[in-house]
Amino acid sequence: MVSKLPHIGTTIFTVMSKMATDAEAINLSQGFPGFKSDPILLDLVAKFTKEGMNQYSPMQGIPGLRKILAEKTKLTQGYFPDPETEVTIVSGATEALFCAVSAVTRLGDEVIVLEPAYDSYEPAITLNGGIPVYIPLNSGDFSVDWGKVSSAITYKTRAIMVNSPHNPSGYVWTENDVNQLAELVERTGILVISDEVYEHITFDGKPHISLGSHPVLREKTFVCGSFGKTFHVTGWKIGYCIAPKTWSLEFRKIHQYVTFSTVTPIQFALAEYLEVPERYLSIPDFYQKKRDLFSLGLSKTEFEFTPSTGSFFQLVSYRHLSTMADRTLAERMTKELKVACIPISVFYSDKRDDKIIRFCFAKEESELNEALNRLSELH
Amino acid sequence: MVSKLPHIGTTIFTVMSKMATDAEAINLSQGFPGFKSDPILLDLVAKFTKEGMNQYSPMQGIPGLRKILAEKTKLTQGYFPDPETEVTIVSGATEALFCAVSAVTRLGDEVIVLEPAYDSYEPAITLNGGIPVYIPLNSGDFSVDWGKVSSAITYKTRAIMVNSPHNPSGYVWTENDVNQLAELVERTGILVISDEVYEHITFDGKPHISLGSHPVLREKTFVCGSFGKTFHVTGWKIGYCIAPKTWSLEFRKIHQYVTFSTVTPIQFALAEYLEVPERYLSIPDFYQKKRDLFSLGLSKTEFEFTPSTGSFFQLVSYRHLSTMADRTLAERMTKELKVACIPISVFYSDKRDDKIIRFCFAKEESELNEALNRLSELH
Ligand SMILES: CSCCC(=O)C(=O)O
Ligand SMILES: CSCCC(=O)C(=O)O
Repeated sequence: MVSKLPHIGTTIFTVMSKMATDAEAINLSQGFPGFKSDPILLDLVAKFTKEGMNQYSPMQGIPGLRKILAEKTKLTQGYFPDPETEVTIVSGATEALFCAVSAVTRLGDEVIVLEPAYDSYEPAITLNGGIPVYIPLNSGDFSVDWGKVSSAITYKTRAIMVNSPHNPSGYVWTENDVNQLAELVERTGILVISDEVYEHITFDGKPHISLGSHPVLREKTFVCGSFGKTFHVTGWKIGYCIAPKTWSLEFRKIHQYVTFSTVTPIQFALAEYLEVPERYLSIPDFYQKKRDLFSLGLSKTEFEFTPSTGSFFQLVSYRHLSTMADRTLAERMTKELKVACIPISVFYSDKRDDKIIRFCFAKEESELNEALNRLSELH
Repeated sequence: MVSKLPHIGTTIFTVMSKMATDAEAINLSQGFPGFKSDPILLDLVAKFTKEGMNQYSPMQGIPGLRKILAEKTKLTQGYFPDPETEVTIVSGATEALFCAVSAVTRLGDEVIVLEPAYDSYEPAITLNGGIPVYIPLNSGDFSVDWGKVSSAITYKTRAIMVNSPHNPSGYVWTENDVNQLAELVERTGILVISDEVYEHITFDGKPHISLGSHPVLREKTFVCGSFGKTFHVTGWKIGYCIAPKTWSLEFRKIHQYVTFSTVTPIQFALAEYLEVPERYLSIPDFYQKKRDLFSLGLSKTEFEFTPSTGSFFQLVSYRHLSTMADRTLAERMTKELKVACIPISVFYSDKRDDKIIRFCFAKEESELNEALNRLSELH
């Protein structure tokens, strides 16, 4: 037997969530909300399921959901993708990223990845015959070093994978970042795969700028998003891809044979739910409260950190406290302190260990307070 | 731009379903049930959704669903796959087939496909760098010519994709078929990808023999199944793969980065629903009534056919009636007679046209009767 992915084990999110369950620890590792979604949305799913909307949806998603998503994009990002030819509903942002990578990557193509990076990017590239080319983000604030990105471009560069708000660091791209990328790819055939699953989770009034909103990037970008992250239902596995027509066509050819379509009653529920913009426009405030509570609590611990500016993750450094490997620390914190987190070395191709761990603060206030209590005991 | 799948357009199922909707025709083309699922199952989904089981499930599926599926396999096929290491829940059988192909196929590997074949097999192979090698099924009854399969094997053969009950023909493998395949691959490293989505739809007491039930094949086979087909909810996109431990491990590495996991509340609902075996053991009888009604009606039309022995499809030949291309006939039947069907040439790599079309009879009695009425007008 020859493994196609010999270097891949179980994803860290599964490993840490299982360890958290086994140790009965508070699980701030894998990124999922610890609270319920809006009962209105849950009732809609129940309603459409019981009404019998349970057969195959169109391969690209039901028209109603594609249309309202285009309208949401107009409202929040100022451009209106064509629901018919540019919007595709898929089984989660993971599928969107996989299909986008698969649609563009040919044998030997280079795909630039900024790291630390979400762990599905590399296998998606490798499985599709591509070669990941890693560029480190700036240490400290995890901003992009555009000079480094520019130097990494070769005649083999097919695409760049980017992610803002950034997992795990919470860095949110500025207008300057967007313009730099646009300038870099404008005269090239290089495509952009943009992971924007935390699009509605930014803080302190900082806006999320979708790459689709930039006239140059719009023609070259697969914008990958997630309803699960926005509406606190990560287990629904429903996301989307917005890309220009010719690339959406290629994307759909892949999606058609990877999953074909996505859960029908959930599509109907979301189409109706999205009709009230307040339901997503209120998300930043909702999460800001959690971010504020969590950073206030963290400031009373020994960890060093800068408050997250987006996503529901917070990085903290323990370099000044211990030389322990981050995986060991994460394991010990889970088993002894009973708070699970994610070690950041797993997000790097060379597994480099900067003594940083990640917490997910998408939890109830009471759970966050209890976790902070336990964290304050760490020296 | 270079397309990875230049030969692929919109799948015929989408094309014909859309044509049916536009023409207000009875849609016997794309394979999906025209009736509601059991309200008990629908209520379970509503319940688990409202109760808040809406976050990521474990990547391989919730333990309860894997366990009850193993028990169902024991009951219906006489073997008990290990739920922990051999059973994986995925987003539909299409994803199961894609991940299985991806897990085994390396650049230049040959994968044998028996045709007519479901249209996702070839793109899955091609996208993963494999070379599909086509073997025609016997004309007439669509049984397998094992001599031909055996001659197609080379040192490059990595896997064989098989499908019983067969779409589109309804042919159900005999014990002899299973033994022939076992003998063929026993001394080789060749793997088997078995599409068994119609496992519960066989007629006249003919049993479905899962390849997992054969001691030799069990060690080499990815059994791909679908809850959507069994429980009349094709839009839920939930299926499974049963494979030996080492191959399940490789399968999961792909699944982990293609979709990661599958809709949580639906998994909980199915786990509870499957506890009553009668719910799937009654499916053959349920569909036999439709098969019988549909063949009786067809015998009053000008079409030639042998009643289907499995799946919810019926092939009919019109060779003696017309020389019209099957796609043209399907289009005209949809627009003029108002009954949509699937032309069979699309299931062949060389698009060869034997003047055969496919009907889906998973519809209410009244709808089938009305369709048969219209079909009886065709000469
Ligand atoms: C698919 S499990 C991982 C969830 C997530 O996005 C994260 O924890 O980073
Ligand atoms: C995924 S749409 C196709 C449904 C089906 O299995 C068929 O019609 O053959």
